Amino acid sequence: MSESEHVSAPHEEEALGSAPASAIDEEDRLRPEFVDRVLDAVEAGDDATARELVEPLHPADVADLIELAARDEREGLVKALAGIVDADVLAEMNEYVREDLLDALEPQQVADIAGQMETDDAVAILEDLEEDEQRAVLRAMEPDDRAAIEEALTYPEDSAGRLMQRDLIAVPEHWNVGQVIDYLRSPGELADDFWEVFVVSPAHRPVGTCKLSSILRAPRKTPVADIMQREQTLIPVEMDQEDVALRFQKYALVSAAVVDDNGRLVGMITVDDVVHIIQEEASEDALLLSGVDEGDINEPVGESYRSRVRWLIANLLTALVAAFVIRQFEHSIERLAILAVLMPIVAGVGGNAGTQTLAVTVRAIATNQLTGSNRWRAVGREIRVAILNGLTIAVLIGIGVTLVLGSPSLGGVIAAAMLINIIVAGLAGVMVPLALERAGADPAVASSVFVTMVTDSMGFLAFLGLATASGVVR
Amino acid sequence: MSESEHVSAPHEEEALGSAPASAIDEEDRLRPEFVDRVLDAVEAGDDATARELVEPLHPADVADLIELAARDEREGLVKALAGIVDADVLAEMNEYVREDLLDALEPQQVADIAGQMETDDAVAILEDLEEDEQRAVLRAMEPDDRAAIEEALTYPEDSAGRLMQRDLIAVPEHWNVGQVIDYLRSPGELADDFWEVFVVSPAHRPVGTCKLSSILRAPRKTPVADIMQREQTLIPVEMDQEDVALRFQKYALVSAAVVDDNGRLVGMITVDDVVHIIQEEASEDALLLSGVDEGDINEPVGESYRSRVRWLIANLLTALVAAFVIRQFEHSIERLAILAVLMPIVAGVGGNAGTQTLAVTVRAIATNQLTGSNRWRAVGREIRVAILNGLTIAVLIGIGVTLVLGSPSLGGVIAAAMLINIIVAGLAGVMVPLALERAGADPAVASSVFVTMVTDSMGFLAFLGLATASGVVR
Repeated sequence: MSESEHVSAPHEEEALGSAPASAIDEEDRLRPEFVDRVLDAVEAGDDATARELVEPLHPADVADLIELAARDEREGLVKALAGIVDADVLAEMNEYVREDLLDALEPQQVADIAGQMETDDAVAILEDLEEDEQRAVLRAMEPDDRAAIEEALTYPEDSAGRLMQRDLIAVPEHWNVGQVIDYLRSPGELADDFWEVFVVSPAHRPVGTCKLSSILRAPRKTPVADIMQREQTLIPVEMDQEDVALRFQKYALVSAAVVDDNGRLVGMITVDDVVHIIQEEASEDALLLSGVDEGDINEPVGESYRSRVRWLIANLLTALVAAFVIRQFEHSIERLAILAVLMPIVAGVGGNAGTQTLAVTVRAIATNQLTGSNRWRAVGREIRVAILNGLTIAVLIGIGVTLVLGSPSLGGVIAAAMLINIIVAGLAGVMVPLALERAGADPAVASSVFVTMVTDSMGFLAFLGLATASGVVR
Repeated sequence: MSESEHVSAPHEEEALGSAPASAIDEEDRLRPEFVDRVLDAVEAGDDATARELVEPLHPADVADLIELAARDEREGLVKALAGIVDADVLAEMNEYVREDLLDALEPQQVADIAGQMETDDAVAILEDLEEDEQRAVLRAMEPDDRAAIEEALTYPEDSAGRLMQRDLIAVPEHWNVGQVIDYLRSPGELADDFWEVFVVSPAHRPVGTCKLSSILRAPRKTPVADIMQREQTLIPVEMDQEDVALRFQKYALVSAAVVDDNGRLVGMITVDDVVHIIQEEASEDALLLSGVDEGDINEPVGESYRSRVRWLIANLLTALVAAFVIRQFEHSIERLAILAVLMPIVAGVGGNAGTQTLAVTVRAIATNQLTGSNRWRAVGREIRVAILNGLTIAVLIGIGVTLVLGSPSLGGVIAAAMLINIIVAGLAGVMVPLALERAGADPAVASSVFVTMVTDSMGFLAFLGLATASGVVR
């Protein structure tokens, strides 16, 4: 985080970061008027005004400003803000927007920017580059930085190894608090942002963690071994970032040591690196359930098209299955066209009931609330909710159809079909994601398609089948 | 966080919190076999074994254990684990499960537990109690704790005032580092978990923040005014927790000062209190989009039923609108029943396309990526993606119907209807949540129902209307 001295702490009722209240609204969004003022100044060639407006902003807000500008305005904006758009700003920027900007830079310029970043941020930038560009940038970097980044890139994508910082404070077990404080005060390149000091064995294995508050509150002569917490949450370097995020959340961690296969301390992950992953992973499920892979509004149209059309085609195929079911009853529909009017109601409400159960189940699996221990209880719970929902909707639609169409037999048929379909929907909504999870697949990815296929087909089958079998169709 | 000395740091490849590897799997979930062993021991009356198994666990895992037990096993389990199930465990527990357990306790017992908690955790427990029970518990508490909690309860639910801790370290501006360290080392009740020291004016208004690492690294004589960050992110005490979470995420905060209407420091919020809100808020949208309000698998069946059936009834009403559209074409369907076979395809794939756009738009609004500045650009982008998707699916279904049914005119009609419906779906998917947001409503809440109504009705209208108008129906 950069320290700036431009603005002192605001004392207004709505206290806002470092920016003047006119730039940012009460939900920390840049006001459209402010964005326009900056962009107008840049367009008019008045870089000084643009810089004056943007300078007090936090790097995260500068990044937002560039994202909010249209694609063809961004290059001019970044040029006008040269010096303000620094490594901190790029670290905060949406990856698609950043990639676009970096494409316009020389490898040497990218290398200079990456050199000013913490390892994890530099890796995040470099891992998205084309392979030859990545190599060119790495060649242009300082040997130390380059080695750190090259090592990080050997770990799998989305693993703890890519997420961690290498800069951390590790002290030997036999030191006392005074020695730690003297070490921290010694001049030299020490990590800037740290919240805990790691205590390591001679083999550089973590044996404990000291909160900075414990160090500050203990007399100088206290051995660190006396104030360190021996209970530690160690993150294996290959661990997936989703699991890292869940672990931080579950154990309310602020930072954690990352260890290699031999248990040696190789890095540290701090909560600010994890917060956006928690957000991403939690909202990823919503997107996946809706048939969207990436779901970033800055993604190029072509990529969005390719990722979404695959799901629409999958949906088209399941719709064909439902159409095949209806076709078996074409003869009934010819004789009683009102069946065609009513059948989408059964399929639609059933689909909605399935989606409800699906959303709840996928979330419970993702947050580790639903495990092998309570699997069958969860299924039983969803069935009970489905029976209650099914009975309610069945009664409503049954009475409605009987009254409006004057046909109690048709009312009975649609009520029975609705009850069946909502119960089937509940079962599918909880069983499909559980089965996908047991099979080692992501329960959020394909379950919507399956569940919709079941609720559509079953809705049409139950309604048209019962109508035909019960003699409503004469 | 409780400090325990039972288990030393594990050095296995899969390093796991404080618990033996046999209790917890690599994703930090309690293994079903372990849960069974504990529950079997409790059932057999062998409390000693149960306690021995559970004692090394982290409070978050003990909370998980109780959640994973069936409802009728929980009371026995908690009794067997008396002393282990403490305030830390209750603070980590799912609110429904906790409420159930607390209902079985006397007010004095609840008061004792709440007295051991930090204000924010105690408030979280007390705010869910019935009013008379809440009053009884408050009466049984120590006057200090009681006053702090009563004050917190005066702030609106889900506000910063309820989330904050009152225990924090604030020092005057004129102190130097040595004075701060001596103050921290002085015996007395100081906050336990803190990551920053707040520097305040004589009127107790925050003027800056010192990271503990800066204090540790500066010589004793350094004035705190020299090392504090003047740029601060102050949280108004009435701010909604969702906005607090977004602010922590945006500015990568570890802790932040909470100020009252007069700008006076009244509390602090730390990132570990915010992490679960980020997770909740992000997954809440997925649930809302799927027509679920709460979506916790521990919610009582009756409550789940009530919250979900409302959405199913709303869905039933929109399905009736679609049925009304179809009914206008009953005559066409009577003459050409294949229309009834094909029409759900147009509505279904359109609905899916609408859901995709909706999920992306709602997420972009929730994360402040979509604001007044880029609203129309986002609409334009979704329309372009919709046109590409629409053309692709239209060609596929058009060719398919032409080949399978041998009817190029029917193929043409369904292709045209599909293209129209997917474009309408894209428009509705982006415009409906934007309109709801502008109207001050939560874009995630009702947009699904609207969008589905549009894509269903428009799908049937376009397909049946074109079929009737084009003369496919003879």
